Amino acid sequence: YENKSDQGVSWTVVSPIVFTYRVIQCKDLLDPRNDTLLWGHIEDEELKGTTSNSKPVKRFIVIDKTVHELYGSKVSQYFDAKGVIYKILPLPTTEESKNMELVTKILEEVHQFGIDRRSEPIIALGGGVCLDVVGLAASLYRRRTPYIRVPTTLLSYIDASVGAKTGVNFGGGKNKLGSYVPPVATFLDSSFFQTLPLRQISNGLAEMLKMALMKHRGLFELLEVNGRKMLHAKLQPSETCGGSEQEDGAAASMRIAIETMLEELAPNLWEDDLDRLVDFGHIISPELEMRVLPALLHGEAVSIDMSFMVYVAHQKGLLTTQEKSRIIQCMLGLELPVWHQECSLVLVQKSFRERLRHSAGSLRMPLPTGLGRA
Amino acid sequence: YENKSDQGVSWTVVSPIVFTYRVIQCKDLLDPRNDTLLWGHIEDEELKGTTSNSKPVKRFIVIDKTVHELYGSKVSQYFDAKGVIYKILPLPTTEESKNMELVTKILEEVHQFGIDRRSEPIIALGGGVCLDVVGLAASLYRRRTPYIRVPTTLLSYIDASVGAKTGVNFGGGKNKLGSYVPPVATFLDSSFFQTLPLRQISNGLAEMLKMALMKHRGLFELLEVNGRKMLHAKLQPSETCGGSEQEDGAAASMRIAIETMLEELAPNLWEDDLDRLVDFGHIISPELEMRVLPALLHGEAVSIDMSFMVYVAHQKGLLTTQEKSRIIQCMLGLELPVWHQECSLVLVQKSFRERLRHSAGSLRMPLPTGLGRA
Repeated sequence: YENKSDQGVSWTVVSPIVFTYRVIQCKDLLDPRNDTLLWGHIEDEELKGTTSNSKPVKRFIVIDKTVHELYGSKVSQYFDAKGVIYKILPLPTTEESKNMELVTKILEEVHQFGIDRRSEPIIALGGGVCLDVVGLAASLYRRRTPYIRVPTTLLSYIDASVGAKTGVNFGGGKNKLGSYVPPVATFLDSSFFQTLPLRQISNGLAEMLKMALMKHRGLFELLEVNGRKMLHAKLQPSETCGGSEQEDGAAASMRIAIETMLEELAPNLWEDDLDRLVDFGHIISPELEMRVLPALLHGEAVSIDMSFMVYVAHQKGLLTTQEKSRIIQCMLGLELPVWHQECSLVLVQKSFRERLRHSAGSLRMPLPTGLGRA
Repeated sequence: YENKSDQGVSWTVVSPIVFTYRVIQCKDLLDPRNDTLLWGHIEDEELKGTTSNSKPVKRFIVIDKTVHELYGSKVSQYFDAKGVIYKILPLPTTEESKNMELVTKILEEVHQFGIDRRSEPIIALGGGVCLDVVGLAASLYRRRTPYIRVPTTLLSYIDASVGAKTGVNFGGGKNKLGSYVPPVATFLDSSFFQTLPLRQISNGLAEMLKMALMKHRGLFELLEVNGRKMLHAKLQPSETCGGSEQEDGAAASMRIAIETMLEELAPNLWEDDLDRLVDFGHIISPELEMRVLPALLHGEAVSIDMSFMVYVAHQKGLLTTQEKSRIIQCMLGLELPVWHQECSLVLVQKSFRERLRHSAGSLRMPLPTGLGRA
């Protein structure tokens, strides 16, 4: 829109962008008979497997160091079997190494390897830190190179993998640098959880419980009744539970967690709307997590934050005593912490000040108003 | 969209984002009686000048070192007069220093100064390199902090300032890292050009000529007839030319250049469409510019590229001999180079290969098919 005046001319530019991406749950992602890892990001069946000028297919894969020790040879075998020219870059992707230096390291290796910025997505295989760091590197390279997320932890499976956020820590602050650029695709294979320690499963269940408390009473009840069993079965499909036709509790809970997450994220991909239910558990936890690093995992800090907020909601008359107890009992059943000695009044106040500074002057604190309602 | 099969569940996420930003031409931007620099990014008149909780207003300003020598005290006086808490960071912003280290430097200073990521835009004052680097820093900080572009060169006035691209050089490649995040506002004040050397004016006229050749015969004729005069008057309004009511040639040519540029950029902000008229002059020039750095300015390299392409268009029968001569004469009138000894066949071939690699297998070479048509 152009507007002329005697002062000069001004224009208002309104430019719409549409992001489209795929989230695919599948089995046996690393089995060479499964095409998903190589071509699952392309929707059109006819375009899969083709490249212009019959160039060889290239893929650059960043993989968490621990995941590499467990699955590196399977990944190599997969791409060997597919005849792909590939480079696997194993990196230590921990909260402590989540910084711009790691992003630069990835960018240097990608630049040296050489990829087609349009058709050769960078693949990230690991937990949330790995997915966040690779996402940032890809979003910077040539202003946007497609990337694929393959979460190997439950936490990243239901949280980091389905949204648009990328990021690294900076200046003592969690995810202070980053971008909002979604992957072209996310591939979800829960069989990776078999090699996770139980504590990492609990860690992920905290984010699942978050979505349950905010949006889905049925999911809460699944976690309340079957949570401990699902935790110890590492969310693997149970043989005894009704046969393969029937969706079991673990599969249902993961599906609902992702559905509710996508419902919240997709209409607000760039977080222009500041009133976000997905922020539940994320008001105090960033300060707490950075303060005690590496004592608490992300989901553990989120659980402590949620437990604090459940008490706040009870004090404000939003939750009954019974509802409060059921939630806390559910957390304990999932073997999640509900308190930490560093979660002091001073820290809570500091978290609220920080929140106020970045939420346009209003605290915007999501609170449960019942089970699965907020 | 959810799709269930016996393999599992898949989702296709379609998420629209709308970018809105303002481009404002005005006079006396650094005069404290003019509110534009402080509040021009806000459209709603009632919201200007207000902050929540009557906090003091803060602004972080990055300014090119040379611009700082010329205008630094005026910038300080402006913000002093407005009662703003501000920090001015002068930086050498040249093609050679356009890298991630400079971005990190800005981020460290911004983080230390402390700004509200929603309401306190970072202001960039300088040429294209300064605007590109600050844009990248702002787009990374807290995943997106608003920023304002104030171009001080003609080149950045009609080119870098009105689009969404940010970037730095990396691994020997021009703008290999960056993002597509537009500023909240761009403020255009041509009086900055008074302190530019003539060569910098020619440099900017090259990008203006690009838009003329691709889209606007009237602009071409303005440059053909008045180009040399406008160059030597540094595009300042001429007193003798019809009085203040009438738009003069310089003002008209800048307005048309921005209009045609916005027409091309706004519908394709993230460059999803690879067939871009604005790429004219940008096929060979990136290789050439990086090769001979700092011998050629960006617009000079663009001019050499355009002159090459004009000969190609003539050879292909798209331009008459007379049209070709008029274009080359116009370039010479604007004191732009039309050839460089390093623009060898080898370099041209390398440029084409690079272009092919990143244009999905097709050269996509915009060519003039007449004056103001492509």
